[in-house]
Amino acid sequence: MPMAEAPLAPGAAIGILGGGQLGRMLAVAAAQLGLRCHIYSDDPKSPAFELAGAKTHASYEDQAQLVAFANSVSVAGVEFENVPASTLATVSAHVPVYPSPKVLAISQDRLSEKEFLRENGVAVAPYRRVDSVEELAAALKEIGYPALLKTRRFGYDGKGQCRIGSEQEKAQAVKALAAGPMLLESVIDFVREISVVVVRDRNGDTRTYEPSENTHHSQILTRSLVPAHADQMVLKTARETAQEIALQLDYVGTLCVEFFECEDEGDHKLLVNEIAPRVHNSGHWTLDACVVSQFENHIRAIAGWPLGGTDRHSNAEMLNLIGDDVAQWSTWAKDPHTAVHIYGKDEIRAGRKMGHVTRLTPKTERSR
Amino acid sequence: MPMAEAPLAPGAAIGILGGGQLGRMLAVAAAQLGLRCHIYSDDPKSPAFELAGAKTHASYEDQAQLVAFANSVSVAGVEFENVPASTLATVSAHVPVYPSPKVLAISQDRLSEKEFLRENGVAVAPYRRVDSVEELAAALKEIGYPALLKTRRFGYDGKGQCRIGSEQEKAQAVKALAAGPMLLESVIDFVREISVVVVRDRNGDTRTYEPSENTHHSQILTRSLVPAHADQMVLKTARETAQEIALQLDYVGTLCVEFFECEDEGDHKLLVNEIAPRVHNSGHWTLDACVVSQFENHIRAIAGWPLGGTDRHSNAEMLNLIGDDVAQWSTWAKDPHTAVHIYGKDEIRAGRKMGHVTRLTPKTERSR
Repeated sequence: MPMAEAPLAPGAAIGILGGGQLGRMLAVAAAQLGLRCHIYSDDPKSPAFELAGAKTHASYEDQAQLVAFANSVSVAGVEFENVPASTLATVSAHVPVYPSPKVLAISQDRLSEKEFLRENGVAVAPYRRVDSVEELAAALKEIGYPALLKTRRFGYDGKGQCRIGSEQEKAQAVKALAAGPMLLESVIDFVREISVVVVRDRNGDTRTYEPSENTHHSQILTRSLVPAHADQMVLKTARETAQEIALQLDYVGTLCVEFFECEDEGDHKLLVNEIAPRVHNSGHWTLDACVVSQFENHIRAIAGWPLGGTDRHSNAEMLNLIGDDVAQWSTWAKDPHTAVHIYGKDEIRAGRKMGHVTRLTPKTERSR
Repeated sequence: MPMAEAPLAPGAAIGILGGGQLGRMLAVAAAQLGLRCHIYSDDPKSPAFELAGAKTHASYEDQAQLVAFANSVSVAGVEFENVPASTLATVSAHVPVYPSPKVLAISQDRLSEKEFLRENGVAVAPYRRVDSVEELAAALKEIGYPALLKTRRFGYDGKGQCRIGSEQEKAQAVKALAAGPMLLESVIDFVREISVVVVRDRNGDTRTYEPSENTHHSQILTRSLVPAHADQMVLKTARETAQEIALQLDYVGTLCVEFFECEDEGDHKLLVNEIAPRVHNSGHWTLDACVVSQFENHIRAIAGWPLGGTDRHSNAEMLNLIGDDVAQWSTWAKDPHTAVHIYGKDEIRAGRKMGHVTRLTPKTERSR
């Protein structure tokens, strides 16, 4: 991969593979810094196209288009972690790609991600590799019930996951998930879910945003709250762990680390649930509550700029507008403390992230 | 002009006449609400084009293009007040235009603006209409020296203005300004310049942002500071005056009112310097220090949405990056309390607004 050198001056172009709402918010962040954005997506209705100075609508396998895209930009990034390895190989042969294809390869496979974390001393939920029905039976014996069976690749928002509550549910799980490399994980009994958005620049300078406390429904994030209700020591440990993971990955850009906070006879400990090598839904609150958002800091990092401030000036509560929720835009718009973000998607579908709102209140160090 | 009815739902299109940095920031604000933006400009290098879902590059006299533009959007607005009246007439025959062509006509002519203000009981600097060299001599006798001779139309950033310090400078002033309708104004001895950004929606709901204290160099704004150093009573009066002007204009959208604060034996009074029927440079701090910026509130107002919150969560100091100042982007980017905005203009020119930075500090009610 070519090495990036000097910071990109205003006017330079950044390429982003992927055109969803994250790409859209990255394109806006780039524009605010005077950088041009080239969005590459296989979806003609990509919401990011509208905010990008240049766009390519082509398959992720289209070598000629990928080369033309790479040659039109000074650096490239991704807005979803499952960009095919062959796509990354083509693009990174012509232009620096951040985070590196090596990092993306780790997080594209739940097993390699877990092993990477474990090897670096990061606590994760007990898990077993499962490549066959026989291995599943053995793994369930070791892990116990309830457990989660997950495909190793292409999972997000609960897709490619199946809960096995008892022996009776095993057959169902096997049927639900296509055969192929899988992972069995213990279901963790947690007191809360928190996540840390960490940014690391090309020189290794690293900053974290304050952890958010997250709520999921049907495995989709619905709410992030900052400050989280957790103890200061827990929050400090979470930030340090996220920082250490970014260091171990030699990461460049924005990374999100999701944690389970567990309690065992009064002792609080953190397990890493998963990492997302990109801007993340649980960091959307930074758009309205921080000087520089996760999106702008991602752009700054991959463009070789110094990182911007990650301190928050307000408390924030971010609520996702999922599917029909978006119909409530006019109610949210009436609240003078709420910022409304709608993603410009062409149609409402159940479970689809259509937008989010962030309610700001004056800053306090602890949640009430 | 067709009347606007229900609020525009996400997905609807807004047209903006003008493609500079104000149009660019309006396009981003529209996108954040899920509204699509169509930018119309006669400059092929318009910085707003890059952030707009649709663009038209054509002359403001091109009737066919103007009609096509008007028919492609649900409502239209402007990003500079000097859009030709004929352009506004064509567009407003097909689609609602905010602010109304009537309001724009008032502010396109310094004389009609002053008369409008005076008729509505708003204090302004002494002025005289000047249509000939003879009238200038008479006006100078009444107004006295120093005075400002201004063209009635097409002035901004000190363009079309000339200071007359003494009788000797009169001939020079007459030569500098082309013959035509002019205005002679008394030069005001002020303690500070402040401005108020006011927003008014289609139902008459009106909100003001906190006044900023402004500094100009060579008649170009260089700095806006919030809170201003002025007394609370002065600031309150400024906000009320801005609100009253918006009401009297039956204004829809964002309007900026610039004031001189004068002191006379301990008494403070406000004179309105000028009004700008659009988003304004002295309101750029609202992007980073308020829940909803002047840009988003302009879009909300013309789209029929409820207005967003105008309260600030932080103190703010906005500095313009003019001409070569923009070369300091990397120094500004290092400050963790500063947000950097670069406008994506194709080339640096002396006096050209290339970007701005906003430094945020924790909120206090008074400037230190």
